[in-house]
Amino acid sequence: MEIAVIGTGMVGRAFATRLAGLGHDVVIGTRDVEQTLARTEPDDRGIPPLSTWFADNPDARLVAMADAGAHGELIINATLGANAIEALTLVGADNLAGKVLLDISLPLDRTEGWPPGLSIVNDDSLGELIQRTFPDTRVVKSLTTVQYEVMLNPARLPGDHLMFVAGDDADAKAAVTTLLEEFGWRPGGLFDLGGISAARAIEMYSRLQFTLAGFYPDYQFNIALVRPAADHA
Amino acid sequence: MEIAVIGTGMVGRAFATRLAGLGHDVVIGTRDVEQTLARTEPDDRGIPPLSTWFADNPDARLVAMADAGAHGELIINATLGANAIEALTLVGADNLAGKVLLDISLPLDRTEGWPPGLSIVNDDSLGELIQRTFPDTRVVKSLTTVQYEVMLNPARLPGDHLMFVAGDDADAKAAVTTLLEEFGWRPGGLFDLGGISAARAIEMYSRLQFTLAGFYPDYQFNIALVRPAADHA
Repeated sequence: MEIAVIGTGMVGRAFATRLAGLGHDVVIGTRDVEQTLARTEPDDRGIPPLSTWFADNPDARLVAMADAGAHGELIINATLGANAIEALTLVGADNLAGKVLLDISLPLDRTEGWPPGLSIVNDDSLGELIQRTFPDTRVVKSLTTVQYEVMLNPARLPGDHLMFVAGDDADAKAAVTTLLEEFGWRPGGLFDLGGISAARAIEMYSRLQFTLAGFYPDYQFNIALVRPAADHA
Repeated sequence: MEIAVIGTGMVGRAFATRLAGLGHDVVIGTRDVEQTLARTEPDDRGIPPLSTWFADNPDARLVAMADAGAHGELIINATLGANAIEALTLVGADNLAGKVLLDISLPLDRTEGWPPGLSIVNDDSLGELIQRTFPDTRVVKSLTTVQYEVMLNPARLPGDHLMFVAGDDADAKAAVTTLLEEFGWRPGGLFDLGGISAARAIEMYSRLQFTLAGFYPDYQFNIALVRPAADHA
């Protein structure tokens, strides 16, 4: 599948590597290709320059946002949530029209320290904001409830732990679910929460998620659903 | 232990029954004893009048808020969250001073329909508001993450499913944890999230909780923590 990953951070890079390993035709979108490639120092969050990642991923392709949008049948928003609308606007509403947009970003607000708050919360969500901003795009919210290594390799944790999907378009959710199953997510853990407004449930869970991360700094955890025993009989 | 349950709804009644069954000395606090007992019809949320519950709990004692506050070594806030501060003010700051207040209410905002939003969220929580309003009281937030029957009988669900506690006072959390263990909560599921500000994590989880309740209308569910297999070895 032709997939565009928007965002060159650790999450975007890990997705590009994993997707290419699964045989997908992947590009990474960035604002300014030359500037991104020219960096030789870690950025202000300590993330190594992309050039070090390219050394291990020589076939990877870094392209301008609009070119990424033109390439992808499926677009993955792996930006920082605060930058999502701006980045997706550069990807282009025309390029996004009709396509599946998998939103794996959170609108984290770090101004009050740790654990982070949310800049959009309670009566709205970033997933809904993206869907409203790009009404012809089929937005699916998923994956943000775990750390990116778990997103891409859920077998790092035992059993049928939970992965939620939310979105208004059933076909788009089916396409994302297929991708999740390629990553290793098991049907017993996949949970369709309903329309894109359920992105509020996914995003608001992040407060508990990051509070728990304070106890498990390796971030290797998730939650599983527990139901009465008879329900599983 | 002398325990006061504040709130005469289904949750308060179930707590009073369960606590009395465990041998505790329980009173239920209400605004107006005579008026509460005089009701013979279900209220506007369909809850049967308290008199029907008294028929099955003849030894139960209904007292005025301030008398409940004077009685309890441990006070349980089982009001609707929107009413919590007003109700606890009637219980009395003097009566609450030095005592353990177990807050099991959520600041639910039903104005936008289902699932409910929160009237306090993100940069504050009801748990923190109660602690700020009654600074001499030792507030512990817990139990709201499951339905009340699961709160009181966690063995309804299999295994070590999660129950969080949050509060600034270690002794108060220990007292609440002892009570939780009497209900049947197992050490493997109990999780101390830290100070009372972690009430934000607990309360914001409610959006996912009530979204899931849309799929399990019996409300008999909880989440369990999943960690890498080696962590449990």
